[in-house]
Amino acid sequence: MKLYHSTSSPNSRRVRMFIAEKGISIQFQPVNLGEKEQFSDWFKAINPRQQVPALVLDDGVTVAEVPAIWRFLEETYPEHPLLGRDAAGKALVTMWERRAELDGFAPTMEGVRNAAAGLKGRALSGPHEYDQIPELVERSKRRVADFYKDFDARLEQVPFVAGAEFSAADITTLVTVDFATRALNMPVPAESSALRRWYDAVAARPGATA
Amino acid sequence: MKLYHSTSSPNSRRVRMFIAEKGISIQFQPVNLGEKEQFSDWFKAINPRQQVPALVLDDGVTVAEVPAIWRFLEETYPEHPLLGRDAAGKALVTMWERRAELDGFAPTMEGVRNAAAGLKGRALSGPHEYDQIPELVERSKRRVADFYKDFDARLEQVPFVAGAEFSAADITTLVTVDFATRALNMPVPAESSALRRWYDAVAARPGATA
Repeated sequence: MKLYHSTSSPNSRRVRMFIAEKGISIQFQPVNLGEKEQFSDWFKAINPRQQVPALVLDDGVTVAEVPAIWRFLEETYPEHPLLGRDAAGKALVTMWERRAELDGFAPTMEGVRNAAAGLKGRALSGPHEYDQIPELVERSKRRVADFYKDFDARLEQVPFVAGAEFSAADITTLVTVDFATRALNMPVPAESSALRRWYDAVAARPGATA
Repeated sequence: MKLYHSTSSPNSRRVRMFIAEKGISIQFQPVNLGEKEQFSDWFKAINPRQQVPALVLDDGVTVAEVPAIWRFLEETYPEHPLLGRDAAGKALVTMWERRAELDGFAPTMEGVRNAAAGLKGRALSGPHEYDQIPELVERSKRRVADFYKDFDARLEQVPFVAGAEFSAADITTLVTVDFATRALNMPVPAESSALRRWYDAVAARPGATA
């Protein structure tokens, strides 16, 4: 199997860090987003949605979408579980990872895509063209600020986002913080001390460099 | 365990239909959204995000977010799987269900919440207040139209959204079509014959009345 990814894609990083944390080895194939290789015919044949990451299985089937790629890897390599252990654990990782994505990752992406001059007419990733809506940029930043407050409160109660153990929910949260810091100039605020303590611990994991 | 839900909530319907298709029985507890019961102190103690559906487990833990509730139920009651059978199947259901949600369900909800007079200041569900952005309404409708075209093309190839078998991806797609029909006056277009054939078959399942 082969993972199509880009080093500049935060969604690709969510998968690379998952692979690193599981301690498995997958063949990587870079897709050059700067040269718009995701819109090329050869890549559209792999993923018609024209997005990285995409995992091509040995029988040629493409699995796209981060949680879907994670699910395949977790089922195939169950050691070092990152999607939860028992039924309740799996549900709570799903819940908290989703909240990190919907409340943190997605608004960060929305803030970037509706502002960048190079993304005019491409406000949403995927095969369709949609104009930017500048009003979304400020709202996105407010949402990221609310996300930081909510996750700071959560991390006052528990060591990791989904509870007692490191999980995929921490991966999405870490990638969101780094993405918002770099692309929206929104690092974790000084007063969010629980979130900062969590960030320092998780960013120091070897998998975080993936 | 107990499912807090509302008959008027499309997200609640996604869980009710999942339960019906699995043939299991769960205690239901209605939350009256018309009387804003989701914002009450008693419900906030159950789900601080103030959203239905929410499943409270026997030990008092709350599982919220539709895919998380599904995951708990699928792990607990593995018969009649709706989230896939093997590793690739589970990944493909995750992928297609997510596309139905991101490309169909979410824009339908966005179109409704940014237009409804009763939702001023509540453009996004959850604990925070965000103003409506009227420009999103038209874009949402364009996205739903694109979703219908894309899923029509998909259903020309396969009998069910995720492939050969009925799955949670069909549930989200069915709930989206009914929601868009009712709330945006956007039924499946006459020319989308594969999607219409699929709709007729899936809407006739006993679980669709849930």
